[in-house]
Amino acid sequence: MLAHINGNFKGKDIVSLRQFDPHSLQKLFTLASEMSSLAKKAKGSNLLHGTITTLLFYEPSSRTFGSFSAAIKRLGGQTVDIINPQVFSSVSKGESFEDTIRVFESYSNALVIRHPEKGAALKAADIAAFVPVINAGDGIGEHPTQALLDLYTIYEKFHHLDNLIGVFAGDMLNGRTVKSLLRGLSHYKGITAYLLSPKALQLAKEDYNDFAASGITLIQIEKEEDIPKNAHFWYWTRVQKERFSSLADYEKVKNKFILSKRLLSAYGNKDLILMHPLPRVGEIETDVDEDKRALYLRSQVRNGMYVRMALLALVLGKIK
Amino acid sequence: MLAHINGNFKGKDIVSLRQFDPHSLQKLFTLASEMSSLAKKAKGSNLLHGTITTLLFYEPSSRTFGSFSAAIKRLGGQTVDIINPQVFSSVSKGESFEDTIRVFESYSNALVIRHPEKGAALKAADIAAFVPVINAGDGIGEHPTQALLDLYTIYEKFHHLDNLIGVFAGDMLNGRTVKSLLRGLSHYKGITAYLLSPKALQLAKEDYNDFAASGITLIQIEKEEDIPKNAHFWYWTRVQKERFSSLADYEKVKNKFILSKRLLSAYGNKDLILMHPLPRVGEIETDVDEDKRALYLRSQVRNGMYVRMALLALVLGKIK
Amino acid sequence: MLAHINGNFKGKDIVSLRQFDPHSLQKLFTLASEMSSLAKKAKGSNLLHGTITTLLFYEPSSRTFGSFSAAIKRLGGQTVDIINPQVFSSVSKGESFEDTIRVFESYSNALVIRHPEKGAALKAADIAAFVPVINAGDGIGEHPTQALLDLYTIYEKFHHLDNLIGVFAGDMLNGRTVKSLLRGLSHYKGITAYLLSPKALQLAKEDYNDFAASGITLIQIEKEEDIPKNAHFWYWTRVQKERFSSLADYEKVKNKFILSKRLLSAYGNKDLILMHPLPRVGEIETDVDEDKRALYLRSQVRNGMYVRMALLALVLGKIK
Repeated sequence: MLAHINGNFKGKDIVSLRQFDPHSLQKLFTLASEMSSLAKKAKGSNLLHGTITTLLFYEPSSRTFGSFSAAIKRLGGQTVDIINPQVFSSVSKGESFEDTIRVFESYSNALVIRHPEKGAALKAADIAAFVPVINAGDGIGEHPTQALLDLYTIYEKFHHLDNLIGVFAGDMLNGRTVKSLLRGLSHYKGITAYLLSPKALQLAKEDYNDFAASGITLIQIEKEEDIPKNAHFWYWTRVQKERFSSLADYEKVKNKFILSKRLLSAYGNKDLILMHPLPRVGEIETDVDEDKRALYLRSQVRNGMYVRMALLALVLGKIK
Repeated sequence: MLAHINGNFKGKDIVSLRQFDPHSLQKLFTLASEMSSLAKKAKGSNLLHGTITTLLFYEPSSRTFGSFSAAIKRLGGQTVDIINPQVFSSVSKGESFEDTIRVFESYSNALVIRHPEKGAALKAADIAAFVPVINAGDGIGEHPTQALLDLYTIYEKFHHLDNLIGVFAGDMLNGRTVKSLLRGLSHYKGITAYLLSPKALQLAKEDYNDFAASGITLIQIEKEEDIPKNAHFWYWTRVQKERFSSLADYEKVKNKFILSKRLLSAYGNKDLILMHPLPRVGEIETDVDEDKRALYLRSQVRNGMYVRMALLALVLGKIK
Repeated sequence: MLAHINGNFKGKDIVSLRQFDPHSLQKLFTLASEMSSLAKKAKGSNLLHGTITTLLFYEPSSRTFGSFSAAIKRLGGQTVDIINPQVFSSVSKGESFEDTIRVFESYSNALVIRHPEKGAALKAADIAAFVPVINAGDGIGEHPTQALLDLYTIYEKFHHLDNLIGVFAGDMLNGRTVKSLLRGLSHYKGITAYLLSPKALQLAKEDYNDFAASGITLIQIEKEEDIPKNAHFWYWTRVQKERFSSLADYEKVKNKFILSKRLLSAYGNKDLILMHPLPRVGEIETDVDEDKRALYLRSQVRNGMYVRMALLALVLGKIK
């Protein structure tokens, strides 16, 4: 059973965005903002001194690994890095997932787990009896720190998370990041989400109903002319070619989903921010990068580190 | 030539349990116990501050790697992690083992080496002229820190290592851990060891004679009814199917060697402790895990870290 | 565009030896010498406390990786270790080199990059707008910290870098290290370089002209009898069999290029130092290792760490 955070992070597993409420998010983001100031000074901190966090990555993910590693070390903590334990001897000798988790728990003050299978992080959290477990992505399941950094990036710009208009582009059906961000926003009032995608990649009915029931105004659109000019943020993702049954169908839509200078001139406004969960493979043209509204490559990535610094400090009980 | 420790660990290579005597073991275990208190407070220590230990793993072993890594970092030391150097460029270009050891010695205050070949750790110790080398397992050779943590686990419970009755189950012929633990116990008086295994997997004659000559009372048993009810510890290991010449022979004995609640009820006593070197692959049933006498998954694993913390602090001369 | 250092390292990318001048080298070497004293005391330092350096290795290189890792940690800095990001998820999903560099830049105070392609380090330096990039070898391009440690090793012995006589043996045509060291020495007056190699492996005409124009006196020799007896240093490298069109040609020359006790007795002098960039695969006989003039296995390797400690401290602005 996953505990609700209710403003008290200490010792809690962080597996799903469902555990958060606006109060807990506010607390996390206030601290993330302090972490940002700290990191920019490069002065170091000893907040996590004496703690060991094991980064247990059952699949490699250089970006998420690097972000957690830097976050922990910036606060004076240490990591034990275990990448692909399934090819390491004990697991390859037939050790169960349960035993592996218990072993690494025994060395650590916290476990960060990345796993290709949905549900693995929750399972690890159930097994680890003494230390908090943080989900760093479990396949098509959740990747809560990604959603937290997305929310924080919006919060950092607008200083609030209610009454926002967002445009989400790409694959609503299969993409994990869009749904996680929507789940995060569903805690707030007055959210309008324009979902720009080909019909074949619209939200699954079940997800649509869930988000609608949570109070988000959902507007499904299929062409750029329907992009509202008063959005607060654009959240761009990849439309994966392999999701289409025919190449012709893919060809028809793909150009509508590329964020270009032209699209930005036509539908953007000056306070808009541009986001992307990365990696990007062409769906945002590189000449957009230099636009000051483009936060995806630097601010958003840095924010991931600040949010993880804040999360670790709270979960390890070093900040109340 | 390997130096006897004689209570003075500073700068010494730690390759074999043969280097230890009861005085040195006592010193190590007293310190391991202090390390245990330290780690439980998660307050950190700067005992190894300014030292670099290279973890040179010629084969991956996530458990041993993680234990050394956490041990060193809990004391404020740092590691340089080199996994599979033979696929890294210099070695793959044809560099000799000697040159590789000398290079990593030059960066380090200590070397921890894991190698698939028996004798590799001793060879490394002979090559490294300036820093201590610790054997983290050399194939079918030794894995002294495993034996030390096993001894410490027994010591922690009973506060002495003489006059003990142990039951060892599994493969006496090929298993490295049973023989290492027996070698450690051979330094003490009044040890009785019941060796539960199929005939085909009994101790080699040479080993039997060695241990008998060292003063251990060895009792070879083949069925559970011969397990004594007054044992201090059970040390369970895996019976490997592939060691049997016929499947029928294996099938006949395998169930006798599974540690179950039933077996524990029938032959255990309340002060007994249950140990296993891990990984376990079925030879202890998982419903035994919750028994408070079961130390294999958590206490024994943690003890491995505490013993390694103590060993590094002594070998690096940070504690006299 | 690469900045000249001109005595001010702070924030500068370190990509090529062309950026250095004698004043900058002197500054670096003075500091490297202080780092050597520091490391020998194993007392630790907090000079780089609070800084994160990402070691981004697109190809493994245990020696260079270990040297940078140890250098940074000896000064209290921390590393984020990313080995083979191209097999890690983001890059394998098609992320561009530019985006990867920007991501890791965002986590870090400095980036150390190793890459199999010439020019990759310069490209990374151009992309990273906020943190310094250090080239740890870019294919057949440069490996400036190797040349710096070679120069420092000579400087440490003779306390000057002008008016030196050096013997370079091996492959002048393809070897990166010889050319880098010559480029470093070209900043000084009165350098005489004897280049001992088979005709087929002499310097390319263009390189020859370059170095000659820079003021180095180049003397190409093909047999040991032409080795001068008054050299300050011998810099030995491997003659690669595969560079020869016929095995017969290779067999003819290979024995002339082996550094043996006999060769050293015949042509060495008491103040000579023996160097090699490593890995060595036979071209220096192992019984030469114990000669006190042989610096290649320990001093030279350690000097690599000291030079990297000094470089990081300067580039990160922790020492002016």
